[in-house]
Amino acid sequence: MIETDAVIVGAGPVGLFQVFELGLLEIKAHIVDSLAYPGGQCIELYPDKPIYDIPAVPMCTGRELTDSLLKQIEPFGATFHLGQEVTRVQRQADDRFLVETSKGTQFLTKTVFVAGGVGAFQPRQLKVDGLDTYLDTQVFYRVRDPAAFAGKELVIVGGGDSALDWALNFAQEGPHQAASVILIHRRDGFRAAPASVAKMREMCEALQMQFIVGQPTGIEEADGRLTGLKVTGSDAVTRIVPLQALLVFFGLSPKLGPIADWGLGIERKQVVVDTEKFETNEPGIFAVGDVNTYPGKKKLILSGFHEAALAAFGAAPYVFPDKRVMLQYTTTSPKLHKVLGVETPTFDD
Amino acid sequence: MIETDAVIVGAGPVGLFQVFELGLLEIKAHIVDSLAYPGGQCIELYPDKPIYDIPAVPMCTGRELTDSLLKQIEPFGATFHLGQEVTRVQRQADDRFLVETSKGTQFLTKTVFVAGGVGAFQPRQLKVDGLDTYLDTQVFYRVRDPAAFAGKELVIVGGGDSALDWALNFAQEGPHQAASVILIHRRDGFRAAPASVAKMREMCEALQMQFIVGQPTGIEEADGRLTGLKVTGSDAVTRIVPLQALLVFFGLSPKLGPIADWGLGIERKQVVVDTEKFETNEPGIFAVGDVNTYPGKKKLILSGFHEAALAAFGAAPYVFPDKRVMLQYTTTSPKLHKVLGVETPTFDD
Repeated sequence: MIETDAVIVGAGPVGLFQVFELGLLEIKAHIVDSLAYPGGQCIELYPDKPIYDIPAVPMCTGRELTDSLLKQIEPFGATFHLGQEVTRVQRQADDRFLVETSKGTQFLTKTVFVAGGVGAFQPRQLKVDGLDTYLDTQVFYRVRDPAAFAGKELVIVGGGDSALDWALNFAQEGPHQAASVILIHRRDGFRAAPASVAKMREMCEALQMQFIVGQPTGIEEADGRLTGLKVTGSDAVTRIVPLQALLVFFGLSPKLGPIADWGLGIERKQVVVDTEKFETNEPGIFAVGDVNTYPGKKKLILSGFHEAALAAFGAAPYVFPDKRVMLQYTTTSPKLHKVLGVETPTFDD
Repeated sequence: MIETDAVIVGAGPVGLFQVFELGLLEIKAHIVDSLAYPGGQCIELYPDKPIYDIPAVPMCTGRELTDSLLKQIEPFGATFHLGQEVTRVQRQADDRFLVETSKGTQFLTKTVFVAGGVGAFQPRQLKVDGLDTYLDTQVFYRVRDPAAFAGKELVIVGGGDSALDWALNFAQEGPHQAASVILIHRRDGFRAAPASVAKMREMCEALQMQFIVGQPTGIEEADGRLTGLKVTGSDAVTRIVPLQALLVFFGLSPKLGPIADWGLGIERKQVVVDTEKFETNEPGIFAVGDVNTYPGKKKLILSGFHEAALAAFGAAPYVFPDKRVMLQYTTTSPKLHKVLGVETPTFDD
């Protein structure tokens, strides 16, 4: 049983920055995430795509953002517990919380910070009878290793950026080029970058890939392998599209997961918080980032940073009931320089 | 008369980021500041001191922060009106605001964003009869050009970081070394970095500078020049400290300035706003950054960034009354890529 001041649930950018804001107030934190690495959506969904709206960072990728935050929180030595979900949060007689994870890790903590983003990642499923049998062998909802698809007969379903981007990626000449790429979408219109759509149409013209409008309605199997997808077109005709591997990109569905059972106030799958401390209806449990809601809420990383700062101040009375915690500035406070492990500068110019 | 969607009052980091958030929503802004350059406190108070709590920026100086923000807002071509204070804000019959500056610039704008930081910068004055006569010739409340003090007999008054830092700077060997440095503070204790205080005591021991405990109570003049400061010690004895130049560092006093007369709700010299849109009691006037107050408010730059984002969304209905403005992401929105002037990426990996 690990005794601690704070457990942060979620190691996305806001969870990571929560470590920083708690650290400045000398509150030590443990951080739990269901993924095997820190970074959350930034790493899972757009590791290499540019982000432009992190204040004072004109451009960075999801990976660079994560790396910068990991560097920033280094002085605070938070302990990471990765590849495990928090399964139970239970208030104890002394008002602390017992927090338990799917790997059996147990914490006794004074405060809990839910920084769960969209929740446990849950790609929207393609609902076709029998498809689940081939999950992770021939049917995939994300690309972990592009090399695994090289040289294969690929079918890709979806009409958003991920579907288009991966279709182009596997159809193009390069180390991951597939034997063939067929893109399937229910309509001849896309929620994707116009440039990607134009490129796709160009490659179809050049017979480097194929695009079919239609709805997947069934599968074809042979010798315990998935061999084809039945696709019903707008003409009501069903065709069989042969394949060796199927990639489905229907986006992520917000799924709170076990958080839904902790007794927190929930509104439209979001955790309700105040805007003073970003505390939930359970005193001592805070929620920051995309997982929370309040009047005016926008799901922006920069809002999560603000929420994490105010939540840290909100948590201080639970951790230090007898101390009045004041705002100090990292530019001028020798105390903060000490906790950050940096030297206090001696003169201005 | 300049007709515009938005006037931002204050070109500190939060005012600058306000340009960015408005720009993403295609709202063009003009920005006014009393200083001659953008950056506000960051440039005026700590251009070269490290800041550690900008999220995802482990360390930057005030100058670097300002430069990054200027680069980030470049795509939006905001017009700067520097070296002038906003003197009048008056609602017109059509609900727009007439905004006028001390230089006579006039705007007719749909929205106003007060990003005034601590207000017009107002260093706390040393109240001694006759001292004002020598303001900016021999008496200074800030150092604009350190070279101007080289070789002079300097007296520095104050007990904070600025007083200590500048005393050390001018007492040390270097291009700006003064002929002599005498530090005066009302008590033998400092609100400054312990390392600076230790260094000061060390230099006093080595007779490289001098420290006197006492209160300035009068001046000595000769031939229209300030020649000395009368200092009354704790022993009630008054001594004359000769000088050629006097530097006073008593910190900044928050002074709202003309903003106080715009009819906005004010609480303890701060502009009261809601936490949904950071709007004041005057519809269409928003306040962001250190100048505003709401339950839980902390004067952190990162909070100002969040406030600027939500205020931009709050302003959209005034600028585009017939359009529903949705949140889009800089990572994935081709529309935002267009306003940012960047290419939409075509594939992931």
